[in-house]
Amino acid sequence: MKKLINDPADVVKEALQGVALAHAGRVRVMTDPNVVVRADAPVAGKVGLVSGGGSGHEPMHGGFVGPGMLDAACPGEVFTSPTPDQMLVATKAVDGGAGVVHIVKNYTGDILNFEMAADLAREEGIAIESVVIDDDVAVQDSLYTAGRRGVGTTVLAEKICGAAAEQRRSLAEVADLCRKVNANGRSMGMALTSCTVPAAGKPTFELGEMEMEIGIGIHGEPGRERKVVAPVHEVVEMLATPIVDDLPFAAGDRVLAFVNGMGGTPLIELYIVYYELHKFLSGRGIEISRNLIGPYITSLEMQGCSITLLKLDDDLTALWDAPVNTPGLRWGA
Amino acid sequence: MKKLINDPADVVKEALQGVALAHAGRVRVMTDPNVVVRADAPVAGKVGLVSGGGSGHEPMHGGFVGPGMLDAACPGEVFTSPTPDQMLVATKAVDGGAGVVHIVKNYTGDILNFEMAADLAREEGIAIESVVIDDDVAVQDSLYTAGRRGVGTTVLAEKICGAAAEQRRSLAEVADLCRKVNANGRSMGMALTSCTVPAAGKPTFELGEMEMEIGIGIHGEPGRERKVVAPVHEVVEMLATPIVDDLPFAAGDRVLAFVNGMGGTPLIELYIVYYELHKFLSGRGIEISRNLIGPYITSLEMQGCSITLLKLDDDLTALWDAPVNTPGLRWGA
Repeated sequence: MKKLINDPADVVKEALQGVALAHAGRVRVMTDPNVVVRADAPVAGKVGLVSGGGSGHEPMHGGFVGPGMLDAACPGEVFTSPTPDQMLVATKAVDGGAGVVHIVKNYTGDILNFEMAADLAREEGIAIESVVIDDDVAVQDSLYTAGRRGVGTTVLAEKICGAAAEQRRSLAEVADLCRKVNANGRSMGMALTSCTVPAAGKPTFELGEMEMEIGIGIHGEPGRERKVVAPVHEVVEMLATPIVDDLPFAAGDRVLAFVNGMGGTPLIELYIVYYELHKFLSGRGIEISRNLIGPYITSLEMQGCSITLLKLDDDLTALWDAPVNTPGLRWGA
Repeated sequence: MKKLINDPADVVKEALQGVALAHAGRVRVMTDPNVVVRADAPVAGKVGLVSGGGSGHEPMHGGFVGPGMLDAACPGEVFTSPTPDQMLVATKAVDGGAGVVHIVKNYTGDILNFEMAADLAREEGIAIESVVIDDDVAVQDSLYTAGRRGVGTTVLAEKICGAAAEQRRSLAEVADLCRKVNANGRSMGMALTSCTVPAAGKPTFELGEMEMEIGIGIHGEPGRERKVVAPVHEVVEMLATPIVDDLPFAAGDRVLAFVNGMGGTPLIELYIVYYELHKFLSGRGIEISRNLIGPYITSLEMQGCSITLLKLDDDLTALWDAPVNTPGLRWGA
């Protein structure tokens, strides 16, 4: 294992100290338990937005804390759910009196722990809404999931709901909006290589010299099938067809197209993916009116990509365009 | 070779088409020859900023075209210098009557071709200033370079000079500023893995299972030495010591610390690098007052990082903070 780390046991702790030092004006990092919080939290009268999950997917979620996006993120150990006490501390830190939305990716540990944290927070008088993201069309049930996994749509939900919370929409409105984003978002990913969890010291799975895995999960969970590597136009078709057929997306739809890098794939390849995706969608009469291209929900150094499509309306578009000021996603601010 | 590409011969062309489709409001992409230009170029009365170099370093340079940064970028084939005609077309496209600065990384091909383009542009009546960036302290002379290589400081020079040009500083002022940034910036990089140029189909160099290369160039050019992989605090010391000693940076200096990912290294590791760099500099009384962390000048899917330090004064700081709106770097706009 070759990584830019010290002791594998200290990876999350030291990375969080890096985040704290680098972005001191924007976030503060609490330890014991680990929580990344907006520097100005709680914002009075604003719905608080909390997400979290295992580390190793950076910039998600800690890099999405800041005005216009999350109020707090709970980072677990690498590929390991955060604990209920992290989520409770985060929830209390961001409650500005208008309640808190938990955005939860559909993994069994995250679901259980966020449920427990929500119960504890409610006992302390904080109104909580929980929204589960389960947008991955690759497989039904998986290694850590009952139902579909939560992947790329999470990033879009955090941005869009963050903007809505800034507008002082109510707890119920922000939660309903988050459910709407989830209902209108679909994703699928693929891997060219595995990744290595530092504490494990060896690759999560093995792929042959000329193999790729279609439908991979963000923790290296098995996907739909392994195939011989193919030209990217075929790869895009393998990912985009099940996405489009699932919702379904139809001619005349406007979408946000999110081409995500898994962490080890260079940007030049992601732009080729985008080029092919644009051709694919144009052929079906689907218009890309917004896009996001880069590594935003990653799997350590895995090479590969995922595609997320989100059906847009005017409200979602305006919320997407609203200013955001986080370490990982920033514009207009 | 496993990559998200079609034909290796089409990588640059198709990636540029992806850029054109994704960022149509911000840039336009000219083909034959390939140039990425600000959508609103030329801006009358503003000094034009042109850079360029081989592809494979994305988002540099095409991703840095837009208000507050470059007016145009000339992408060569992967790790191959662009041609004089690309540079001439770019220069003519962005000349708003106030002259054009060429920001040139110190590689023999780039130097020769930008010199030729400058001569041709002057013949057409355009005032040109050329500034060479040679900030890499790793080695004197190299595979493609006489003198020092140009690396991370290029990104900072493009941002800072872009802001100065927006303020309508003169050609001489912007060029002098660029020379000042180069004089105050120092970099060094390292690699854990090689990268594979698509057209070559095999890794540029070989590193052993437990080897790293200290002082690597952004095309995989040999560095100072190969060593057994070490904890990141030692790696940071190996990179930061020659950087600090070279200028030298001294106690009381304020710096911009740029921790750059080589393309295949996950963000979580870059934040640990930043954490260690902060400790290293604190120990010498050097204050990090600005930072940039992420993959900005890359070497395809190479795993590794580079560190760039830029000594700041109030003018450089204000120019760094000024709004920028490019695909690869964006804030305040």
